[in-house]
Amino acid sequence: MPGLHEREIINAILSVCGSPGAGISPVMAGAIEGPGDDCAVLQGLCGHKGTGRIAVTTDTMVEGVHFSMDYFNPWFLGRKLAAVNLSDMAAQGAFPRWAFLNLAIPTRYRQCLDDFILPFAEGLCSMLGAYGAMLSGGDTVSSPGELVLSLTLMGELTEGRWLSRSGASPGDIIYCSGPLGESAAGLAILSMQSCRLQLRHKVRRTVLDRLERRHLDPVPRIGLGRLLLSENLACAGMDMSDGLATDLAHMCRMSGTGAEIHEENIPVSRALRSVCRQCRSIGNPLDLALFGGEDFELLWAVPPERCSLMEARVTSVTGRPPFMMGTMTDGHGVWLSGRYGRREITFMGYEH
Amino acid sequence: MPGLHEREIINAILSVCGSPGAGISPVMAGAIEGPGDDCAVLQGLCGHKGTGRIAVTTDTMVEGVHFSMDYFNPWFLGRKLAAVNLSDMAAQGAFPRWAFLNLAIPTRYRQCLDDFILPFAEGLCSMLGAYGAMLSGGDTVSSPGELVLSLTLMGELTEGRWLSRSGASPGDIIYCSGPLGESAAGLAILSMQSCRLQLRHKVRRTVLDRLERRHLDPVPRIGLGRLLLSENLACAGMDMSDGLATDLAHMCRMSGTGAEIHEENIPVSRALRSVCRQCRSIGNPLDLALFGGEDFELLWAVPPERCSLMEARVTSVTGRPPFMMGTMTDGHGVWLSGRYGRREITFMGYEH
Repeated sequence: MPGLHEREIINAILSVCGSPGAGISPVMAGAIEGPGDDCAVLQGLCGHKGTGRIAVTTDTMVEGVHFSMDYFNPWFLGRKLAAVNLSDMAAQGAFPRWAFLNLAIPTRYRQCLDDFILPFAEGLCSMLGAYGAMLSGGDTVSSPGELVLSLTLMGELTEGRWLSRSGASPGDIIYCSGPLGESAAGLAILSMQSCRLQLRHKVRRTVLDRLERRHLDPVPRIGLGRLLLSENLACAGMDMSDGLATDLAHMCRMSGTGAEIHEENIPVSRALRSVCRQCRSIGNPLDLALFGGEDFELLWAVPPERCSLMEARVTSVTGRPPFMMGTMTDGHGVWLSGRYGRREITFMGYEH
Repeated sequence: MPGLHEREIINAILSVCGSPGAGISPVMAGAIEGPGDDCAVLQGLCGHKGTGRIAVTTDTMVEGVHFSMDYFNPWFLGRKLAAVNLSDMAAQGAFPRWAFLNLAIPTRYRQCLDDFILPFAEGLCSMLGAYGAMLSGGDTVSSPGELVLSLTLMGELTEGRWLSRSGASPGDIIYCSGPLGESAAGLAILSMQSCRLQLRHKVRRTVLDRLERRHLDPVPRIGLGRLLLSENLACAGMDMSDGLATDLAHMCRMSGTGAEIHEENIPVSRALRSVCRQCRSIGNPLDLALFGGEDFELLWAVPPERCSLMEARVTSVTGRPPFMMGTMTDGHGVWLSGRYGRREITFMGYEH
């Protein structure tokens, strides 16, 4: 086989992420057996008076579909693979703990230990480690085609409860944790040279950096998810990966409700408005917020009587006030009202 | 996107494998939340007096590297993806429970619901279900290149103990559970038309079928793994995926021992000898057993004083006597003795 041997790749990743035997990180105590055996063996699950549950999520990213190495570097790629899975943990209020990596690596990357595999592993572990999770196992194979990355992440639900998409009722108020559409705008700036050229002298570099960073290096809202769950501040929750129109439609379908949101309440940042004004091919800010995806903010529903407490606690703990966007209804589908009346946007939007 | 929408693919898989909400299978009680939420939430882990542990394994299969659709059909492909992961559970003596599937599907398969996705899912779930495991979540994305399949399987170690690769000591006797090299021969017959033509009139169809089946549809030795663990019949164990020379070298490295095996004790079946004699390009039987891989039998080590009890129990419970192959030593590496003297075979063999 040309390029690095599979064992060399695994050893390189372990050299960055550590092995349980090496005792590099305190959280590694949770994985008794790690890479080298047929399975990883996990402990730390049963110390919660028998009420603990495990949350498991998995996401796959394919080169040419979910990302391009034209604008990603390996470090950000590792961080993003971790972040999209961590965001699912945030969505349920779980403590992320153990990650398992599946790499299908084309030959061209196997030859790049220093240029690809090590910085990728460093990025992955920097993001996992920041939230108390660790790489605990995986499988590395060669790929005749594209780079395919899967991460499976397990977390602990210590209270035996979790945030679900199905817990919302008509009348609940709908919130999200941050401005929407920025990741999609960041992707447009990263991938379209014409945008970059147009914006270069019209928008400050810090604004472009911020939007690009939102796409390359999203922040999983682990602390917020834990807060909403542990203090009973939400009756339903999820993370926003496909755009508000699709994500909210999932919550509605799972809860058996409809939703009504208001155009003027969709959180659109000044930075997003600014780049969209200067470069029309990025799209309009509202469409990006509704249909853009990959913002990885949290979306949740709260009974009206809990809203003021929730708003105060979220603002106090995360330093950012949440955005109130609308109301769950007893209808069907997601409806947007605004200047031009009322229209259905259920499941509208973007898919890779 | 051309072909089926991601949700249609997921719904098709769920229609075959069931969703926890539908309550189709009794084992599904373990997964409280399944497909549809951000994470699967697992229970059933903490009912074992606080001693239970979780075993996790993951394997990736890439079209053109690990399999070809020239000789696999989707049903066998699903079964094999499950079997290679189940075999890792067997290796540690775990009860397989929850599986998470990552599919990167090229457009040409997305258009084939009845011809590809449904039979693949049926095969996967037939194999998982036979051993008490269920599909509990996953991610489906499109692939511009090849079909890439990852399965992550979690199991329960109810006693809080498990078989490890690192438990062997010098003097322990080395066993395996079945004849070796048949899967590699089966692959040669499946993939080389010249072999098939040569063998067609010289070897009985049932013999060819048996060898092909060993490659297409291996049997994970779950019951054997449970027996070895629960009755303390082995001090180290693993499954055989890369050929004896490599698998045993892993056990030696992890245990800090060497191993000495004897040519005449390597289990080679009459069927394997027969096809190798009739078609020289398949290779010689001993090389296939040592270096062929994908047999998915178990390999384990036993202190001498436990051997007769172990042999009796394994024969009685599985109906097949185990094969004694050699001894763990206080040297390094894997050594083969035979007609032509003694030679080192550590990590020799085949890699995809």
